[in-house]
Amino acid sequence: MPKLILLSHDKDEYQQLIEAANLPDLEFVTDPSQADIVIGEPKAIRDALPLLSQPKWIQAIYAGVEPLVHPAQRRDYVLTNARGVFGELMSEYVFGYLLFLEKKILERIQAQEAREWQRSESGMLRGKTIGLLGVGSIGAHLARTAKHFGLNVKGFTRGSETSPQVDQYYHGDDLLKFAEGLDYLVSVLPRTKETNKIIDAALLSALPSHAVFVNVGRGNSVDESALLEALNQGNLAAAVLDVFDKEPLPVDHAFWNTPNLYITFHTSAISYPEDITKLFVENYRLYIEGKPLKYVVDFEKGY
Amino acid sequence: MPKLILLSHDKDEYQQLIEAANLPDLEFVTDPSQADIVIGEPKAIRDALPLLSQPKWIQAIYAGVEPLVHPAQRRDYVLTNARGVFGELMSEYVFGYLLFLEKKILERIQAQEAREWQRSESGMLRGKTIGLLGVGSIGAHLARTAKHFGLNVKGFTRGSETSPQVDQYYHGDDLLKFAEGLDYLVSVLPRTKETNKIIDAALLSALPSHAVFVNVGRGNSVDESALLEALNQGNLAAAVLDVFDKEPLPVDHAFWNTPNLYITFHTSAISYPEDITKLFVENYRLYIEGKPLKYVVDFEKGY
Repeated sequence: MPKLILLSHDKDEYQQLIEAANLPDLEFVTDPSQADIVIGEPKAIRDALPLLSQPKWIQAIYAGVEPLVHPAQRRDYVLTNARGVFGELMSEYVFGYLLFLEKKILERIQAQEAREWQRSESGMLRGKTIGLLGVGSIGAHLARTAKHFGLNVKGFTRGSETSPQVDQYYHGDDLLKFAEGLDYLVSVLPRTKETNKIIDAALLSALPSHAVFVNVGRGNSVDESALLEALNQGNLAAAVLDVFDKEPLPVDHAFWNTPNLYITFHTSAISYPEDITKLFVENYRLYIEGKPLKYVVDFEKGY
Repeated sequence: MPKLILLSHDKDEYQQLIEAANLPDLEFVTDPSQADIVIGEPKAIRDALPLLSQPKWIQAIYAGVEPLVHPAQRRDYVLTNARGVFGELMSEYVFGYLLFLEKKILERIQAQEAREWQRSESGMLRGKTIGLLGVGSIGAHLARTAKHFGLNVKGFTRGSETSPQVDQYYHGDDLLKFAEGLDYLVSVLPRTKETNKIIDAALLSALPSHAVFVNVGRGNSVDESALLEALNQGNLAAAVLDVFDKEPLPVDHAFWNTPNLYITFHTSAISYPEDITKLFVENYRLYIEGKPLKYVVDFEKGY
């Protein structure tokens, strides 16, 4: 009988939700040495890895699984991550901020405070071009929202071209060509060796100066001093960052008070137990039938 | 040969765009007494109405045509308004503000100013319920965007049920039932006798206290003191108003500094000559073939 251990802050909620799903043969355990299935936050799982005697399948509740794909860690199990659940929330965040900027909401609030009937035109998404750095399940969802709002969509990927909502794909050496003419650049890249500082001075210079950069991927992909330079020189209209190389962002970091830089606190897409439980239930049914699981992480690629 | 007069601030742009469309037989005139077709702002057209000797077709460049449907004005011509062009812009505005509020963008900006790594949860559109007061072409577009973001959509109309994106329709006496349980109430109602102060104390009381009210229709539909009361008492979470009973909003009006009230300046959807010209070209081809025009205004209904 499969034995599941819950290594999450929300373990009580997970237990209730999973019990309500009435999965066949599943037993909950609290002793890691007895468990063959694990659900939890990647860091909590990493800490428990040495205690697991025979892990078969581990379900991470986040998309990013850096602690588990580190070469120092064991890999004698199937790792699945959370996919297909963050796209909607990421779309709300990304398009919320793009609309906030286009509709000049802050300027309107200031005009209101000054009791000024301000008739200046707002911008619009319609007809603009968005570039997605990374088009996995989150990128594909962003592309769908972009098409809904009438945008042209460019996508940069390693090689895959799976989203039909992307109008033009770019790969490999075409990164600067991809950046040309973008109104918005959105990174959803995971943290890997290949993504390190991919958003550098050259890429930022290739963007039009009216462009907006949004990072909902990982902080390692940004060359922070190049981004600061671009914003301070007015070579980039604005940036919205939810992720940073070091989190929490150090209190003396220049990002806190750089003009036209909006930061949030790795909150763009929260992991909800209801969403993750759906993925788990779907995979558990495959697991007990001995079928290949979905959302399997490639340890080498790191995602 | 049809003779067109342009009565718009953007008349040069309209002339260029219409000339570029190479419409058969069309002649531009500047003397109103010679014109049988008119394009322009409703107020400018109203002022010119007595000077037109034989108007056959008048294309208003706005959706709202109050000055032309007033009973004191002549009605011996076909009036068409602008439809199908504002839905996209209205969607950007409405969902821009809803996301601004759900994502707590102002709070995040304040946290950033305080250098505070603020991990409080944001809200989300997904799973919420939006109520559309009025479901014409703009309402239908809002409904499409709402469905894209995973909302439940309720619609209140006089009798029509034309948008398949509306999950539940309400009519007539069911206004308070329509309001029950709404997370967002959005009015796109035109100014008519029937819409006068339809958003009154009773309707506002029927909303949950966490609800947000957005008005992109016309200001007459709001009982302003009831709305002020609801906001000041905390019986409504927020309101976003782009239109007012009197515009520009008088400088001493309480709306300027009411808590949780966001005002903009009748700028949610601008009339773009490119968009209106497309409607005009489409209708001109019908006109010269003697066929019924599209987007015809019912003088009695007022829209």
